[in-house]
Amino acid sequence: MTSLMMTPAERAQMAMMLEVCAFPKPGNVDRCHDYADTRLEHFLASAIFARPALEEAVTGKGRIGEIIGHAVRQTNVHNGGNTHFGAFILLIPLVYGGGIDGAIKAVAKTDVSDAVAFYKAFGLTSVRMNESDELDVNDPKALDELRDRNMTLLDVMQHSAPNDMVAREWVNGFILTRRGADLLHQIGPGREAIVEMFLTLLATEPDTFIIKKHGRDVAVQTMEKAREVLEGRRVLETFDAECIDTGINPGSIADITIAAIFIALGEGWEWDS
Amino acid sequence: MTSLMMTPAERAQMAMMLEVCAFPKPGNVDRCHDYADTRLEHFLASAIFARPALEEAVTGKGRIGEIIGHAVRQTNVHNGGNTHFGAFILLIPLVYGGGIDGAIKAVAKTDVSDAVAFYKAFGLTSVRMNESDELDVNDPKALDELRDRNMTLLDVMQHSAPNDMVAREWVNGFILTRRGADLLHQIGPGREAIVEMFLTLLATEPDTFIIKKHGRDVAVQTMEKAREVLEGRRVLETFDAECIDTGINPGSIADITIAAIFIALGEGWEWDS
Repeated sequence: MTSLMMTPAERAQMAMMLEVCAFPKPGNVDRCHDYADTRLEHFLASAIFARPALEEAVTGKGRIGEIIGHAVRQTNVHNGGNTHFGAFILLIPLVYGGGIDGAIKAVAKTDVSDAVAFYKAFGLTSVRMNESDELDVNDPKALDELRDRNMTLLDVMQHSAPNDMVAREWVNGFILTRRGADLLHQIGPGREAIVEMFLTLLATEPDTFIIKKHGRDVAVQTMEKAREVLEGRRVLETFDAECIDTGINPGSIADITIAAIFIALGEGWEWDS
Repeated sequence: MTSLMMTPAERAQMAMMLEVCAFPKPGNVDRCHDYADTRLEHFLASAIFARPALEEAVTGKGRIGEIIGHAVRQTNVHNGGNTHFGAFILLIPLVYGGGIDGAIKAVAKTDVSDAVAFYKAFGLTSVRMNESDELDVNDPKALDELRDRNMTLLDVMQHSAPNDMVAREWVNGFILTRRGADLLHQIGPGREAIVEMFLTLLATEPDTFIIKKHGRDVAVQTMEKAREVLEGRRVLETFDAECIDTGINPGSIADITIAAIFIALGEGWEWDS
């Protein structure tokens, strides 16, 4: 079939599956690499278990913060830890809105109840925060703070945007998601295109997950190395091994890659060639 | 979570996912090996796309032949060819009946309409038949023949049982499915157990898919080599490479492996350790 025959929930599940299988993806879990605590099967299990939340999002009804929470709860059922929290922050509004335009409208309609539901789901994960963050999800006062300030979930993303490229997608109109999908169309069909798209984003954007974990210098060095791979001056497999050995995993660009595959599939990009 | 918290449809999808990821599985597509036309992603896509047919089976209503047909149609939508036809022959009655006892009752209730629906689905696949088979699915007269003889789908499986170990499961009470699940419980939790269970079945049962493709001698040699691997007298990875190079893929034992994982998960066997 063409990709256009999939349901939106299937497209989202396929995006999650195709992203984690694509290899070599420097530093991330892929077909060839596991981390000790998070393995390929954990990512694929999450893709299977997320189905009800994705189908809930397809209806375009209900509250986005709640649905993200459902996706996190439905997939937080194995020992692999957080696999797709960032991906759901992007996929749920994209599925809910039926694409980027609809997602922009949907996130604009979030309110404080979405923010509260999101923070409760966030508390289930071990997602890395900045130590200086005043809205620390581990702080029980954070929920009161959200309510006192009447912050919407879009406000929360605005608050996180400087330090989090996934949150930034909500406030800039999903520009990297759009760029990733455009790259897939340009590069062409098949799984190799996913690796090239991932590397291209990695070469041009500092991954904020790497920044939070290792600091900005490491993220910038990773960009430079990705650029060298694209220019044929560095071996992809060596770069991958180096990232794995040092725990440099571009997790936020992986999240955006999933969102980009979802969009591209809906526009007829063919995964299967 | 424990495996017991999954829905039956999720357990079936997880069984399909865990089987294809387990490695090294001599001769079959796994995490480390693709065939030219059928890749890991095709198997995982089928696990995603089969969800509606699996949920239909969970209801325990409707006709098994039709539901197998739906599973084949829903997954026959990529370029990877037949990935799970044999697996659905086992999974659909097992899901429908809520386990082996229920599946035995369910297959006993099949009628000629199930047989006709099954043959129509069979016609969509490129599953290997014996050349001498009088009920050749490619022969348009086969459906008339089924109706004239008033054959139930269980009769069809009885007819195929001498040459097909998957069909044989229907008529012998799913004994290899049961044995595979018992092996998983004995071996213990985790993905390595799947490889050991697969190898144990391979060492003790001639795979009928290999027999149809390469003849009985090759199937028996494959059994002997699997036995040598289990006894530490042959290197698993070398055996795997040899099978891949010569196109020896134990596809029927892979189908039974999926059914066995499904049963074991329902009995609390833990995939995630």
